[in-house]
Parts: sequence; C-alpha cells; structure tokens
Amino acid sequence: MKKENKAEAESMRSTALVPEPALRRLPWYLAYVSMLRRQGIEHVSSTRISADLNVDSSRIAKDLSFLNLNGKTRIGYDVKHLEAALADFLGFMKIHNAVIVGCGSLGAALMQDRGLTRYGLNILAGIDTDPDLIGSKINGIPVYSPDRLGNLVRELDIVIGILTVPAEKAQQCGDKLVESGVKAVWNFTPMHLSLPESVVETNTSIYANLAVMYNRMSRHKM
Amino acid sequence: MKKENKAEAESMRSTALVPEPALRRLPWYLAYVSMLRRQGIEHVSSTRISADLNVDSSRIAKDLSFLNLNGKTRIGYDVKHLEAALADFLGFMKIHNAVIVGCGSLGAALMQDRGLTRYGLNILAGIDTDPDLIGSKINGIPVYSPDRLGNLVRELDIVIGILTVPAEKAQQCGDKLVESGVKAVWNFTPMHLSLPESVVETNTSIYANLAVMYNRMSRHKM
Repeated sequence: MKKENKAEAESMRSTALVPEPALRRLPWYLAYVSMLRRQGIEHVSSTRISADLNVDSSRIAKDLSFLNLNGKTRIGYDVKHLEAALADFLGFMKIHNAVIVGCGSLGAALMQDRGLTRYGLNILAGIDTDPDLIGSKINGIPVYSPDRLGNLVRELDIVIGILTVPAEKAQQCGDKLVESGVKAVWNFTPMHLSLPESVVETNTSIYANLAVMYNRMSRHKM
Repeated sequence: MKKENKAEAESMRSTALVPEPALRRLPWYLAYVSMLRRQGIEHVSSTRISADLNVDSSRIAKDLSFLNLNGKTRIGYDVKHLEAALADFLGFMKIHNAVIVGCGSLGAALMQDRGLTRYGLNILAGIDTDPDLIGSKINGIPVYSPDRLGNLVRELDIVIGILTVPAEKAQQCGDKLVESGVKAVWNFTPMHLSLPESVVETNTSIYANLAVMYNRMSRHKM
C-alpha cells in the first residue's frame, strides 16, 4: 500500500458507517433547523430543506437516514426533534475536554471562540513556551508550560489536543500530544503530521483554504 | 444536472489546471521548505520530502510539476527557490484586500491572527450590527455598520468577504457581500450558501471538522 493511502484507508475504516461527505453535510442541516426552530417553525419537508440549502432532496433523505429518526410524518420532519437528533448524532451534546498547544494568535483566538463550547468542545488548558504567557489566563483558561502536558491530560481527562504551534514545531508537539495520551489531534498548522493510526487526526487547513480560494479567483478572471 | 453538483462542477472548472487535492498539498510543502530554510538547509530531494511528510515521492514530483520550476538538480530542489516558487504560485505573495462581516468571537479572532497577513490576506475593515463595536477598532482594524459595506468594498479595493456571522444571517450577509462586488466569499459559518457562479465560495467548516473528529473518535473506541 502506498504511504499516502494509509491515512485515507484509516479514515475510511473509522468512519465506515457514515461517509465523510454526509458527515460534513449534517452540520448544515443542524444549523438550518436550529434557525427554523428560533423562527418558531415546527415542521419542515425535505423539499423545503432542499430548496433552502440547494442540496438534492434524495441526498438529504439519505443523509438523514443515518440518524435513525422515528420516521417523518406527512407534514415533514419535526424541527425540534430533528435538531436534537442531529446535535446528538454529531457528538455536539457530549463534552469533549481539550488542551490547546500553542497560545499565539490563532490559539488564543480559538480559546476565545464561544462557538466551540456550543459544539461540545471544552478547552480546559493552554500550553505555551512563552514565560510571559505561562501562569496567565486567556478567556479564563489557564496557560501552562509544556512539561505539564502529560499530567494535565491525565488529571483533566483530556481527549483532544489542538495544535496551533508554528509549522516547524508541529510534528514534535503532535508527538508529545500522542505521548500524553490524547485520542485525537486537531491540527491547525499547515504541516502534514505523521501520527500513529490509533490517534484520530483532523486537519483544519485555514491557509490551504486560502490557497484554493486565491487559485479559483485567478482562474475566474481569465 | 442535479442541484448539488452545480457547485462541484463550478469548482472543477475554475481549478481545472490544478486539481484541488494537489492545491491542498502544496501549502504542506511550503511550510516544510520554509522550515528547512530556517534550519539553514540548502537542498532537498523529493525522497527526503516524501519521508518527512509521508507523501509518495512520485506524487510530490507531480504536484510540484504544476509550478514550472526550472528543473531540479542532482542534489534535489533548491530550498529557497522552491519556497519562493510555492509562495508565489499559491498567491501568498500578492496582497488580497478583505472585509470581515461579523466581528463576534470568531470574526474578532481572525482579525487578530497575524498568520493570515503572512499568507497574503489583508483585512482592512470589519462590519457588525452591534452599536458598541461600530466605530471601535479590533487589532487596529476599524469596525463599520453594515450600510457602509458597498462603499468600503469600492473605496478600499476589497476582493474577499469573510463571513463570520451567526448561521441564521449567513445567506443574507452572503448576498450583501455579492451585491457589494467582492469576487470571493470565505464562509466560516456552518450554513451552506447559495451564491451566483461568478463568485468564488470557499468553506472553512470548523464545526463540520469537529463532527468528523468526534465521529472518528467514537468509531475508534469500538
């Protein structure tokens, strides 16, 4: 097996029950039905979801079939029921304790994003090498020195490590997170990590998205 | 053509010269060679890049072939040359003026991320409806009321609109950005937007990534 296919195969195995594209669309439906619920709307048809979100209605029905909803009525899905089922299925109702490694501008920014808390992510600690940051708090979250990582993960029951360090420290800090015992590494650095298969790796490549956007913009001009 | 395939077809057309997976790997190579350059390393072989980044060397050679590099020597790629060629090709050396719509916790966080500036994104203005924010500055960037959007885009030569509003305002604010004349919308909300084909839409779904991570973690435990 080619090296770069290992990660792909691993990812397919671990999400075998729900294909990733479906998993990526489910949060759209959640955001949408939450909006309907706040507007006081009680039922929604897949036809209406389809029109509003510009997704094929048969695809919507298939995506929602993973949820094991107790069928939809003739007047469509019950909005509150669908919202709760989506939030539960996506893991947003459970609390996932996390540590953030690298409290520079992006790390500190994530520590201040209340949205993450609403989606089940509970950032309990920050790690940084900067003596000015160690011992301080960012948005109420204490910052510790790197040698505290292992103890923090054990004591605070931390399962996710968020990586927001400079690119050149990404692999080394990723390795330390794995050693500390986290189950998942959420990598915001532009670096590609090599981590053991037993650890879930999720990449949010903000800068890679910028590259794709710039490229499409330059193509559009032609 | 099915509705949801429109965006896919559009995206394929506008990136026809460089497939998106390659475009997403190029920033890895950039981060990697920047690291080598800071370490004083002058040449790197695709074999070494392959081993360090865990990407097949033939794939690396193919990805880098899009760059029109003046060939590699027997001792491999010239690190400084490759770094400059990648940064230039990815659009990171050009300045792209941007406005950020929604200066809440995520929006303000992005306004404070110096990393974006290094990658060619120049956030010149923020837009918010909160009277307490309007007239203030976040990280030196002024915040304006929504009715100023059109003028700001014209006067400041803004080409990118960054969307960090609550989900229920995403489509409406996306439409306003399109009307104002931006060429691209960078959507950080969990909502799926319907925008005209003439506008580039890039989605950075932080919360969708969380859902994928949670799902993989729960599968791993089994």
